[in-house]
Amino acid sequence: MAEFNVNKAFLEDIRSAIDARQSSSIKDIFGELHPSDIAETLYRLSKDEAIFVFSCLDEEQAAETLTFLDEEIRPRFMQLFTPTEIAERVIDNLDSDDAADIISALPEEQQKEVLSKITDFEQAKDIADLLGYDEDSAGGLMAKELVKVHLENTLIQCVREIRKQAEELDDLYAIYVVDDRDILVGLLPLKRLLLAPTTANLQGIIDTNVVSVTATATREDAAAIMEKYDLVVLPVVDELGRLMGRITIDDVVDVIKEEAERDYQLASGISEDVEADDKVWVLSRARLPWLLIGLVGGIAGSRIIGAHESTLQIHPEMAFFIPLIAAMGGNVGVQSSAIIVQSLANKSIQSNGIWQRLLKELGVGLISALVCALLLLGYALFFADSLSISLTVSIALFTVIIFASIMGTLIPLLLDKINIDPALATGPFITTGNDLTGMFIYFSIGRLLYGLF
Amino acid sequence: MAEFNVNKAFLEDIRSAIDARQSSSIKDIFGELHPSDIAETLYRLSKDEAIFVFSCLDEEQAAETLTFLDEEIRPRFMQLFTPTEIAERVIDNLDSDDAADIISALPEEQQKEVLSKITDFEQAKDIADLLGYDEDSAGGLMAKELVKVHLENTLIQCVREIRKQAEELDDLYAIYVVDDRDILVGLLPLKRLLLAPTTANLQGIIDTNVVSVTATATREDAAAIMEKYDLVVLPVVDELGRLMGRITIDDVVDVIKEEAERDYQLASGISEDVEADDKVWVLSRARLPWLLIGLVGGIAGSRIIGAHESTLQIHPEMAFFIPLIAAMGGNVGVQSSAIIVQSLANKSIQSNGIWQRLLKELGVGLISALVCALLLLGYALFFADSLSISLTVSIALFTVIIFASIMGTLIPLLLDKINIDPALATGPFITTGNDLTGMFIYFSIGRLLYGLF
Repeated sequence: MAEFNVNKAFLEDIRSAIDARQSSSIKDIFGELHPSDIAETLYRLSKDEAIFVFSCLDEEQAAETLTFLDEEIRPRFMQLFTPTEIAERVIDNLDSDDAADIISALPEEQQKEVLSKITDFEQAKDIADLLGYDEDSAGGLMAKELVKVHLENTLIQCVREIRKQAEELDDLYAIYVVDDRDILVGLLPLKRLLLAPTTANLQGIIDTNVVSVTATATREDAAAIMEKYDLVVLPVVDELGRLMGRITIDDVVDVIKEEAERDYQLASGISEDVEADDKVWVLSRARLPWLLIGLVGGIAGSRIIGAHESTLQIHPEMAFFIPLIAAMGGNVGVQSSAIIVQSLANKSIQSNGIWQRLLKELGVGLISALVCALLLLGYALFFADSLSISLTVSIALFTVIIFASIMGTLIPLLLDKINIDPALATGPFITTGNDLTGMFIYFSIGRLLYGLF
Repeated sequence: MAEFNVNKAFLEDIRSAIDARQSSSIKDIFGELHPSDIAETLYRLSKDEAIFVFSCLDEEQAAETLTFLDEEIRPRFMQLFTPTEIAERVIDNLDSDDAADIISALPEEQQKEVLSKITDFEQAKDIADLLGYDEDSAGGLMAKELVKVHLENTLIQCVREIRKQAEELDDLYAIYVVDDRDILVGLLPLKRLLLAPTTANLQGIIDTNVVSVTATATREDAAAIMEKYDLVVLPVVDELGRLMGRITIDDVVDVIKEEAERDYQLASGISEDVEADDKVWVLSRARLPWLLIGLVGGIAGSRIIGAHESTLQIHPEMAFFIPLIAAMGGNVGVQSSAIIVQSLANKSIQSNGIWQRLLKELGVGLISALVCALLLLGYALFFADSLSISLTVSIALFTVIIFASIMGTLIPLLLDKINIDPALATGPFITTGNDLTGMFIYFSIGRLLYGLF
């Protein structure tokens, strides 16, 4: 099976089945599809069409499709169920982590009702435990389903135990070994389970060097550990080292991606984690603070230029190059800081390397500054009549680029030292700061040079 | 075992062992560590220290550590080995995908020599096959090691076959089922293998609905499929559907991350995939093109302002707000386009939603424009004496923000339509374009209003 893509012909088939209200043929069409593909199809249909299709789905498919739908759209389909139906038809078909996600998105009073309708008490307890963890913690990412065996078991007992426990699982990636206090002591790789003779001693074949994360660690920590050690599944333990659950890589992929995207959003001047589908007001609220910083910076800039009003009256050509100087300072600053921010995010900068970094950035700044300043000098000498303005803009451009390189390197490093997210630096802060210093440098050099010539 | 972190005390221990040339105690210290942690430690040591530590490592550990080192640093350690040693001590200890990566980084003539020294011909063939794939294709990501069984086998034959094949593997995630032409027909989940009675028929328990990717697809396609279907391992097939290898999620995590980071770099005006550790010249080359775009834009801006020289001579206060208008247009444009770029990357915008997106962005633009323009009007009326300049700057700001919102939305959508990476739009292109239109709008409104009052 190749990847499925929703195309026009497929949508037309679906729509004609919807129009004819043929539930059974819809059930057949979707019977073969992965829940992720069903969710994608629902997005392409109108609200009423999507609800009709959803109501035709087989129970397990419907439950899993819900986990692939955006949290904003999910309520449309959830409201088709009573609390008892949510417990019996949705929750019962899901792993504990997905079940907890679905329940935590419900209104407070409904959460308790749904939990109380779950007939399997063990399952209800697992979900209630998971609901207790902070959404941003490793515990908030984990699932309770796992296979564990006791250290004192023989291999034959293990296999029997694993068979019993595996029935509850979607798939099996690792078998955890605990002692009699439920403390995680090792891992039994599936490969060894298959290869070991049935008479083997469990203690002899387990891997005791097992990496774990505590449930209260952040989800970013859990993601970093899995990424660093190339893990597919990571056991979660409590402060005592007792096995609480496990995180699988597919949940962490989302965390890793969100983290990389957050840096990009911060750098673009968007302060909350928003998506294009969010409401106009949410989008505006995430963006206005940065615009206001820019506004205040712009007003401050107008005061700096205003202080040179007399120069401007005599030499209005000074004004021509204001946007150039401001923009170049901003561009260089953003470039310098973006590289530092990414290196910090990937932990590839060691704290003792600051001076080395700065020196290298100065090198890049010098090359850029020389190339740009000489090109601008050439242009100005050729097209403008005045030597003063030509020299002023090119010397100012050179100085601004060097200065912006240094600031773009130092500010994110300093922010990181005092535990502020350095991605903030690449946003409007650096652009605005460099605009201001750019204006100051430009007019100071202008005043100096116009005095000389 | 918690996550390991290189700290000062640990480095001191290592350094004193290095100074005393105690190879055996170094071997002991590193014996417990994950290759990823060893690589991290090597980065913190001087070149000579690192080489000494590396030479003390146990053979398998040394080989795996090499796979965690940056490609720029790896040659330092590779040159400790002769081609025969690379074949026998490095390649023989690695999976085919890592082995192919190590070999492909060697100089051309050395590659053949190393390949010819590999004693296991099957292994040499696998690696030679992998070297044939483009680095950016799904084939370039895959490993040859996998467990496959034939459809006609009985379950007992399967188990015997799996035991034999699993010895070659680091760990086992899936068992693939092929027909007599080696065409992938299904997947045997480990869970079912454990739960099925030994008398079961293989055809009855396999999952025939198996997602695969062709070896010539791009690595981004492979990553997208694994992400969409939450897969841990993805089988790779050739054009005929024959099973060629498999990709594991840890290799794909890097692809997903690189992709997210590339958008950020493009948006920050860095054209190649560079890292902070790259040479000064490489960093400059990646950044200069964007600066030159900014420079040309700035010069064009100077012409626009120059056309209003007479206005500036009479009203020098017009110049005060040039950086404000330019910066705000740039900021809003970058914000608008960043949200669109991310939505496009996550495929959450449907092609028929362009008008809806534009309408929403206009809403956000209107709110931002109103808030910022009114604040600026208040400031200007209070601090500047002239009604004309106050009205000019606030009306110009309002217009520029609306315009930048529209451009910031449309340009990435249009670039995407014509198959150009829309992340380009959030970079200096949008900032420069908005600077120019901002100046044009500002001075046009200024001329109009000064004429009226």
